Amino acid sequence: MTVSYRLSEIAARFGGRVLGDAEVRISQIATLEAAQPDQISFLTNSKYHVQLAGTRAGAVILAEADADSTALPRIVSDNPYAYFAKVSALLNPFPETRPGVHPSAVIGAGAKIDESASIAATAVIGEGATIGAHSVIGEGCSIGANVVIGCRARLYPRVVVYHGCVIGDDLIAHSGVVIGADGFGFAIDQGRWIKIPQIGRVVIGNDVEIGANTTVDRGALDDTVIEDGVKLDNQIQVAHNVRIGAHTAIAGCVGIAGSTTIGRYCRIGGSAGILGHLEIADHVEIAAFTLIGKSIREAGSYAAIFPFSKTEDWRKNTVHLRHLDELVKRVKALEQQLGSSSVESLKRKS
Amino acid sequence: MTVSYRLSEIAARFGGRVLGDAEVRISQIATLEAAQPDQISFLTNSKYHVQLAGTRAGAVILAEADADSTALPRIVSDNPYAYFAKVSALLNPFPETRPGVHPSAVIGAGAKIDESASIAATAVIGEGATIGAHSVIGEGCSIGANVVIGCRARLYPRVVVYHGCVIGDDLIAHSGVVIGADGFGFAIDQGRWIKIPQIGRVVIGNDVEIGANTTVDRGALDDTVIEDGVKLDNQIQVAHNVRIGAHTAIAGCVGIAGSTTIGRYCRIGGSAGILGHLEIADHVEIAAFTLIGKSIREAGSYAAIFPFSKTEDWRKNTVHLRHLDELVKRVKALEQQLGSSSVESLKRKS
Amino acid sequence: MTVSYRLSEIAARFGGRVLGDAEVRISQIATLEAAQPDQISFLTNSKYHVQLAGTRAGAVILAEADADSTALPRIVSDNPYAYFAKVSALLNPFPETRPGVHPSAVIGAGAKIDESASIAATAVIGEGATIGAHSVIGEGCSIGANVVIGCRARLYPRVVVYHGCVIGDDLIAHSGVVIGADGFGFAIDQGRWIKIPQIGRVVIGNDVEIGANTTVDRGALDDTVIEDGVKLDNQIQVAHNVRIGAHTAIAGCVGIAGSTTIGRYCRIGGSAGILGHLEIADHVEIAAFTLIGKSIREAGSYAAIFPFSKTEDWRKNTVHLRHLDELVKRVKALEQQLGSSSVESLKRKS
Repeated sequence: MTVSYRLSEIAARFGGRVLGDAEVRISQIATLEAAQPDQISFLTNSKYHVQLAGTRAGAVILAEADADSTALPRIVSDNPYAYFAKVSALLNPFPETRPGVHPSAVIGAGAKIDESASIAATAVIGEGATIGAHSVIGEGCSIGANVVIGCRARLYPRVVVYHGCVIGDDLIAHSGVVIGADGFGFAIDQGRWIKIPQIGRVVIGNDVEIGANTTVDRGALDDTVIEDGVKLDNQIQVAHNVRIGAHTAIAGCVGIAGSTTIGRYCRIGGSAGILGHLEIADHVEIAAFTLIGKSIREAGSYAAIFPFSKTEDWRKNTVHLRHLDELVKRVKALEQQLGSSSVESLKRKS
Repeated sequence: MTVSYRLSEIAARFGGRVLGDAEVRISQIATLEAAQPDQISFLTNSKYHVQLAGTRAGAVILAEADADSTALPRIVSDNPYAYFAKVSALLNPFPETRPGVHPSAVIGAGAKIDESASIAATAVIGEGATIGAHSVIGEGCSIGANVVIGCRARLYPRVVVYHGCVIGDDLIAHSGVVIGADGFGFAIDQGRWIKIPQIGRVVIGNDVEIGANTTVDRGALDDTVIEDGVKLDNQIQVAHNVRIGAHTAIAGCVGIAGSTTIGRYCRIGGSAGILGHLEIADHVEIAAFTLIGKSIREAGSYAAIFPFSKTEDWRKNTVHLRHLDELVKRVKALEQQLGSSSVESLKRKS
Repeated sequence: MTVSYRLSEIAARFGGRVLGDAEVRISQIATLEAAQPDQISFLTNSKYHVQLAGTRAGAVILAEADADSTALPRIVSDNPYAYFAKVSALLNPFPETRPGVHPSAVIGAGAKIDESASIAATAVIGEGATIGAHSVIGEGCSIGANVVIGCRARLYPRVVVYHGCVIGDDLIAHSGVVIGADGFGFAIDQGRWIKIPQIGRVVIGNDVEIGANTTVDRGALDDTVIEDGVKLDNQIQVAHNVRIGAHTAIAGCVGIAGSTTIGRYCRIGGSAGILGHLEIADHVEIAAFTLIGKSIREAGSYAAIFPFSKTEDWRKNTVHLRHLDELVKRVKALEQQLGSSSVESLKRKS
């Protein structure tokens, strides 16, 4: 009962130019190495021409520049990677879920669950919560009181949404995600931490995906905000009152401290960090493992990675970091001793 | 049915000096920008005087130095931030929970659950576990056999406490917290890792808060210990046999390796790390993103952050780190060639 | 009803040479400091001789070199640490679990659950899933459709395994583990991220342990693979299409980006990171907090840690990192000015 599509049908749906036999039927997508004759593959980088030559794929998606690099049936697209994504989504739709509430789910008083939504076994929906049309709440999810979740949401098992949070349409939240836990706020009073109640919410726009075990804390007073189209990988920590601009993508294990605002279309590498109360402009790229400690006002690419080396080399070089200021002074002393104008001018330039 | 308090009532409860109309009624707390006339705001930093001038708040909490900077009804406190925390807690008490065990919860034989405690839907309480008065065990929590949890604990949904762990009063544990999983202990034997059973416990004092998805491993032989008043943010990893001293606060994503002891009143920044078998003194502050690789015997502030810059600048500068030892030798050779006594003395000083 | 063993019985089981009274009965294992007369301790490092002298242990495990350093009954082993692990496993077996399916568990159609397996309260087993002999699926676990789990698996409460993943024998997965969530794959198309369906699986070999809240994403097209004997600590993120070679051990909070292959018998320190599409050879050790940004072809030890210091020293030294390239040029200018052949030769060597 595998679904398949003719190349011509795919092109009719997503555009692109078909070369070769447009009647070839495709039922799955695969890498060039793994693809079988009923599968379509893709070439997004010309360096994979060797694999293209050896592929058993029934058809290929490629760019205009590569249009003639194979005799296989093919679709030529100006964005082969996005085309591949669309074809894959066509061939791999979300598995169907049965609308309705599993008998083992627990539904709070006054909860409004659309009749096309699916509430899985052992899920708990809080009092007054709203679950939109065609949304799927996975096994063991806990949806707090008065939460609003839009349409077509897909919450995998064991997602927790605390009370009062508001989520748009098309959310994908993977297992272990926690939305709306208390932000980390305390005041010190006579040697003891006093908890500051976190009374803001988390407000999430449309078309957001959140990876497994990522946490997004609720605001202290105002809300934490995730705008439309944001993509968060696994194990990310978003602190209270952060705002993440639309279409920003953040890789795994990143930590973002409280009250920081991140612009639109940013890309943040794995295990990076951003301190609190900062502003990051639109279209900023931050490298993996980089800590941002000041606001970034200008689009561009930023990094702070310590380069790795063999441990004995690292040790030999790194010991000097604790004396770098002294080294600079020693160089300065040498320069003064020599009185070199060329050196001085070099210094002045930088 | 909003609860509200007169300014005079608040001051009667928490102290401080009321200036202006003490009969103003307050029902919520808010930032200076967002506050409405029935809300109280606060000024903890004189740089927000502009916001103070424009606020619509009905009253303000501020310091003695700022007592005359507004005509609004106000409470003058020597610690306005802690005062704000207390007022917020008054206005935002934990939502009431119904004592009793939800019918879908599963209670093990011999579990002792105080009749004022609340066990939510789908929670599982292990054999012989003890749940103290007024404690709330959230949906889907799993409390292992013979666990002891004190009074007024609040476990949000999906917290797991492994068998035998002991927890004091007033714990707050957010969703996804795992207390008492096995520490990471293996011995290598003929090319294979043999698991070392982790037979210690986790022992947690009073008044501890643990953020979402934080993990605290059980001890290998002895216990892992979290002392009174410790505050842990989200996504922290505390390895086996760590001890965290009272009133220490740790920000998100920190990792603490096995058998390390951290003092009292320490503050550890986000994504920092501490290697194993170390001792950290009381009152140590560790910056974000800093790895501590040796014991710290002296209170103070420590850091190890690589400064970020534009990626092209970072690349240009960072390439030299792999040759820093050579650079130091080159400077030394220059110094020797010049035989400069001033340089030598500079070197000797540092 | 404590179980105990004579020293002679232990040696009969695990080898080693008994010195002193072989009839001493041992019921638990403990550190030298904590051990009681019915307990056995161990000496794996000669620097603990002082503790050995003062121990109240009934017996000790130690190396040949230390065989005469105590008069206590003792077992001499060529690998005392592994011996300790084996004795501890003997004395601390997994608690017995009752075979069968708890009435509150939810079992999907066509699931094949071995009759010796144990499915705990509120666990959910998906349609067509297979659970092998003597496996224990903890409370609230969610096992997806068509998942295959081998024999003697032990899944602690709240583990999630997504549909279609395949797991060998003897898996230990701690609470909060998520296996098989979608990898982080998107194509940009006209300013919006399009999701790339993640249709690969996670395939896990035999004898793997996975720590609390660790996540292992499913492959984009092909599978993510964890080979036999791999040990993963807590809070690790393994991205799509990563392959981790047999018997590699990874400490907490590590992030591994997509499509990277890690060799066999590697050891990776806490909070380290490895970028995507890299290859790491067998027997590579990576220090804590180290980012690996290029493939490593050669076994050995690698590091990239910024050394910590008091914050004022760190600030003073670190400010120069942003001008390191200039400093190198200044040194070069001095060298040219002096025309020193010795300096030049030094430079050429490195």
